[in-house]
Amino acid sequence: MNPELTLLDEDAHPSSSRDRLACDLQERDRFYSLPQNFYNDPQYHQHDMEEIFYKEWLMVGVVSEIPKKGNYITVQVGDNPILVVRGAGGTIEAFFNVCRHRGSRLCTQHRGKVAKLVCPYHKWAYELDGKLLYAGNEMGEDFDKEKFSLKKVHVRTGGGFIFVCLGKEPPAFDNFLSTLDEYLEPYDMENTKVAVETNIIEKANWKLVLENNRECYHCDGSHPELLRTLLEWDDTNDPRADQAFKDHVAAKEAEWTAESIPFKHASSGLRNRIVRMPLAEGTLSMTMDGKQGSQKLMGRIKNPDLGSMRILHLPNSWNHCMGDHLITFRVLPLGPQETLVTTKWLVHKDAVEGVDYDPENLRKVWDATNDQDRVLAEENQQGINSMAYQPGPYSKTYEFGVINFIDWYCERMLNNMGKEVPETYRRLNNVDLDH
Amino acid sequence: MNPELTLLDEDAHPSSSRDRLACDLQERDRFYSLPQNFYNDPQYHQHDMEEIFYKEWLMVGVVSEIPKKGNYITVQVGDNPILVVRGAGGTIEAFFNVCRHRGSRLCTQHRGKVAKLVCPYHKWAYELDGKLLYAGNEMGEDFDKEKFSLKKVHVRTGGGFIFVCLGKEPPAFDNFLSTLDEYLEPYDMENTKVAVETNIIEKANWKLVLENNRECYHCDGSHPELLRTLLEWDDTNDPRADQAFKDHVAAKEAEWTAESIPFKHASSGLRNRIVRMPLAEGTLSMTMDGKQGSQKLMGRIKNPDLGSMRILHLPNSWNHCMGDHLITFRVLPLGPQETLVTTKWLVHKDAVEGVDYDPENLRKVWDATNDQDRVLAEENQQGINSMAYQPGPYSKTYEFGVINFIDWYCERMLNNMGKEVPETYRRLNNVDLDH
Amino acid sequence: MNPELTLLDEDAHPSSSRDRLACDLQERDRFYSLPQNFYNDPQYHQHDMEEIFYKEWLMVGVVSEIPKKGNYITVQVGDNPILVVRGAGGTIEAFFNVCRHRGSRLCTQHRGKVAKLVCPYHKWAYELDGKLLYAGNEMGEDFDKEKFSLKKVHVRTGGGFIFVCLGKEPPAFDNFLSTLDEYLEPYDMENTKVAVETNIIEKANWKLVLENNRECYHCDGSHPELLRTLLEWDDTNDPRADQAFKDHVAAKEAEWTAESIPFKHASSGLRNRIVRMPLAEGTLSMTMDGKQGSQKLMGRIKNPDLGSMRILHLPNSWNHCMGDHLITFRVLPLGPQETLVTTKWLVHKDAVEGVDYDPENLRKVWDATNDQDRVLAEENQQGINSMAYQPGPYSKTYEFGVINFIDWYCERMLNNMGKEVPETYRRLNNVDLDH
Repeated sequence: MNPELTLLDEDAHPSSSRDRLACDLQERDRFYSLPQNFYNDPQYHQHDMEEIFYKEWLMVGVVSEIPKKGNYITVQVGDNPILVVRGAGGTIEAFFNVCRHRGSRLCTQHRGKVAKLVCPYHKWAYELDGKLLYAGNEMGEDFDKEKFSLKKVHVRTGGGFIFVCLGKEPPAFDNFLSTLDEYLEPYDMENTKVAVETNIIEKANWKLVLENNRECYHCDGSHPELLRTLLEWDDTNDPRADQAFKDHVAAKEAEWTAESIPFKHASSGLRNRIVRMPLAEGTLSMTMDGKQGSQKLMGRIKNPDLGSMRILHLPNSWNHCMGDHLITFRVLPLGPQETLVTTKWLVHKDAVEGVDYDPENLRKVWDATNDQDRVLAEENQQGINSMAYQPGPYSKTYEFGVINFIDWYCERMLNNMGKEVPETYRRLNNVDLDH
Repeated sequence: MNPELTLLDEDAHPSSSRDRLACDLQERDRFYSLPQNFYNDPQYHQHDMEEIFYKEWLMVGVVSEIPKKGNYITVQVGDNPILVVRGAGGTIEAFFNVCRHRGSRLCTQHRGKVAKLVCPYHKWAYELDGKLLYAGNEMGEDFDKEKFSLKKVHVRTGGGFIFVCLGKEPPAFDNFLSTLDEYLEPYDMENTKVAVETNIIEKANWKLVLENNRECYHCDGSHPELLRTLLEWDDTNDPRADQAFKDHVAAKEAEWTAESIPFKHASSGLRNRIVRMPLAEGTLSMTMDGKQGSQKLMGRIKNPDLGSMRILHLPNSWNHCMGDHLITFRVLPLGPQETLVTTKWLVHKDAVEGVDYDPENLRKVWDATNDQDRVLAEENQQGINSMAYQPGPYSKTYEFGVINFIDWYCERMLNNMGKEVPETYRRLNNVDLDH
Repeated sequence: MNPELTLLDEDAHPSSSRDRLACDLQERDRFYSLPQNFYNDPQYHQHDMEEIFYKEWLMVGVVSEIPKKGNYITVQVGDNPILVVRGAGGTIEAFFNVCRHRGSRLCTQHRGKVAKLVCPYHKWAYELDGKLLYAGNEMGEDFDKEKFSLKKVHVRTGGGFIFVCLGKEPPAFDNFLSTLDEYLEPYDMENTKVAVETNIIEKANWKLVLENNRECYHCDGSHPELLRTLLEWDDTNDPRADQAFKDHVAAKEAEWTAESIPFKHASSGLRNRIVRMPLAEGTLSMTMDGKQGSQKLMGRIKNPDLGSMRILHLPNSWNHCMGDHLITFRVLPLGPQETLVTTKWLVHKDAVEGVDYDPENLRKVWDATNDQDRVLAEENQQGINSMAYQPGPYSKTYEFGVINFIDWYCERMLNNMGKEVPETYRRLNNVDLDH
């Protein structure tokens, strides 16, 4: 064998699959679904993790899950266990949940409360700000505790949502956080609680889970429970919107203005989108009968008829904020064809289970809808895996949200890989400039 | 790093594993089992899928499973969901079961009936011949429905069996289909029904499942239920066959001739083999007591004592056709060491469950035999995975069927990969010339 | 594409990952945990299997499991099914458990008894020494049975333990076997029996399982049941050992000397270590109440208060030998992040279940301890998988056993791969020279 050739190793491959991936994105037709590799190739998936999930801001939870000093939540992002903890003075800190001694996870529960962060293995103990306090008494004289703090993860909050970024240089995010503060102000998110939480695993690539969420073209016929209250259109400029719909929206907006409830469309590039839409005439909340799911309204809200404020945060969250409860959805990839979807139903912290709300009633619509979406995404994945699959055309009206998501994905991938971003994508995706 | 070397990528690997595989086949000893890689290497398995399962004719079902217009069955071939449907005028069509919109599977059931082929995701609708009828009303003016027909798969029938070929240029098949028509004529396959169907997963390479089927050297001691009725030899020219066996065969053949029941050996190269053999003296059918499993004989058959007509179709089916019922076996690889075996017991469509046949009685012999074979194949796989494994010698008398199967496999692999086929294999495997 | 480049194939990769692995070992800091790849990379794991588990001596069982001619045990080492059988005249033989015909496993039970080794597939039969006796009567005239003996595996015993080595040239082992014979003499291992046997799977790399075992730094707070009887230190030279501990040890050693019970530290390089330590004051055996687990003492032992003789055999076994029972632990990797731990509790062969010992009582302490260790190893693995993990510092006092294990591992890996072994490792690891 030519001895020079032995220089080559696996490292050659990720870089060349990077090149192929970039090339695929640069050359694709924006109005067609992605090529097959993007939905099932393990190497392409690894690039998604590295360029999107390890570099972009991710929604991981809400502040009311960690109300007091020492309260923490944990979340797994790809291979990385992450810890978010309320520190001294109410600040929120995030760390890689990895002991600096031999690497054990520190906090092993989903949600908990601690005085210090103590590793269960050998009792190394850290302050809530990550500083190493104690490492046994046998590490030798030249051991420098200062060098063994927990590794930090960027963390920010906005409107009561907690976002982390595992990358070194997080994308600009201030404008959207301010917008969230403004739009969530009526809800007083610090004073909410999780009434119900579910986790489902979808045997589908995370982008198929998002694509499914980004259009309601499939709702009719797939989501009977959801369509009892949800209106399919989320924009009065939609060419399909009729006069009755426009009148309905206008009437509700007048009420909301009188009550200082934000409702105007807001966005940050293609990454974030906020829009408040009325629910179907005569319904107040996403329940089976359209009545309130919780009798105690959130925050300062007096009028239960606020429709649903939908908040999109790419790559991993959508949300429905109603007058009586708020539903957050969090998406985390588990593998090329496996995705975790976590749904939390939040109510006023003083709402009493069994009196003000019935958890079974609260969850019914989205339990059904999540499961229907899971089947749709899994069937989509099954077909895409075939050698017969080729990218198909999106409808520019029904599927504009999917086009927007994929545009955002393409721009972020190319940008984060340091590859040339075609002008089209660059123009579309001016994050944090406009809203 | 030498910049030229970065040109290399994973694509170099499949091609070089192709070369190694071809070389392994060209150099092996025909009378020894295959080298280890052929039974457990993921890349070699991928080549098996591409060269055999995506290019050869596969038995997927029988015509009576889809008796009327709109009846369909689905089957998964590797990564490819396949749809077989009875179209207008009774024709049988096959497609990749993949919507041309965003790639979702169209038909999600194992077996069903539809008026049109409607995608469950966004209701794109296709005619039973695959033509796109409806794609919503928002695809834009320049959308050309003609370009979005379902992708076809080659499909043929013979003797009531349905075969598909995923490749572009299917191998010649007419002679064998004619033979099947002739040999199955007495059974009237259109007027049968599936009385029982089972699916088992064997943790073994598909070739081990086939090798196991291709010899009865292992039957004694492994298959007590089967040997109540099955005679081990399937050829009066077998050097081990004694005079009593030959006399028994001759007597039965005389009866069959009188009733115009085909029984002469027929083959198409090594791919197909048909042979009718009597069952053990005094038994009529593969049941525990040797009595009929169904009281209603098939088709035009009057004499229940037809022995078993065995039909082999490489790479993926063997069958036993008796006077009262017919058993089909279908093999589909799920991975390098995992194989699905589907067994269907067919009876006359007018046979009444609980009156003419008892499904539990019908299935007992082959449920036991299938499970015994599963264990044998799995134990074979376990040993082959060891570094101690080396190809071992086949017995030219007891294991001629295995030698034939492996010869066929070698010839097809090399031919389909465009590699040089050694003279020995070429001579053996003149498919569709002789029978 | 440059045609020369097509010469390259996957074979280039193992060799370059070998080079990287060797380089990683040569350059690491001995007092820090290993880099991430060593704990989770599939290729690195394959090298562990090839260089350690397929070349070093492994403890697989004890002689009393196969007391008579024809008794056998089977064990799976990576991809290799291994068979250990008591042959004629009481000798112990080991083979690859792979038939020379088509590669099936021969003996499929965990433990059994046979007259001959007969393959369940086609009844090829071998003598207990591996010679082929019968291969059917149709293999042809030129078939030479002499060439189809079972493939042997090196096997040795010492002190009643059975060791196998899958490599061609096993490492020197005589001195340690003699030491075992001497130290186990009081226990008469041939006349013991397995009272309880458990198998647990830990979702962690095998080295994390060993590292966990090699220190008791984690015992306090993790192992309440174990610490009822176990003293944390196993050396009176431990700088942390106090005078009370030293006095306790001295008193027991005087008793043991009087009874000719071996207790002096013995080792073979870093691979093997034997040390007898008293249990906690007032306790006799590793049970919940510290009382004997079996009323019948082992072998020639008269004094139940022998503490625990701990026997380490790298890479895959530790043991606790008490006066009334003996516990063996065997570690076998199942994958990069999956390890099988088999625990056997041995008692005198004449001890009567329900009279002399209660199996539930006997197993309680180590069932609890094994499960606690499983969780610790799995949590360790989870954190190590993170991109935040970097090798952390070992305590030279608390974790000297871990440092020793990793030193042994590094020396063996480099030596067995034919790579340069840094002087430090070479000096430390003079196996079979000193004890």
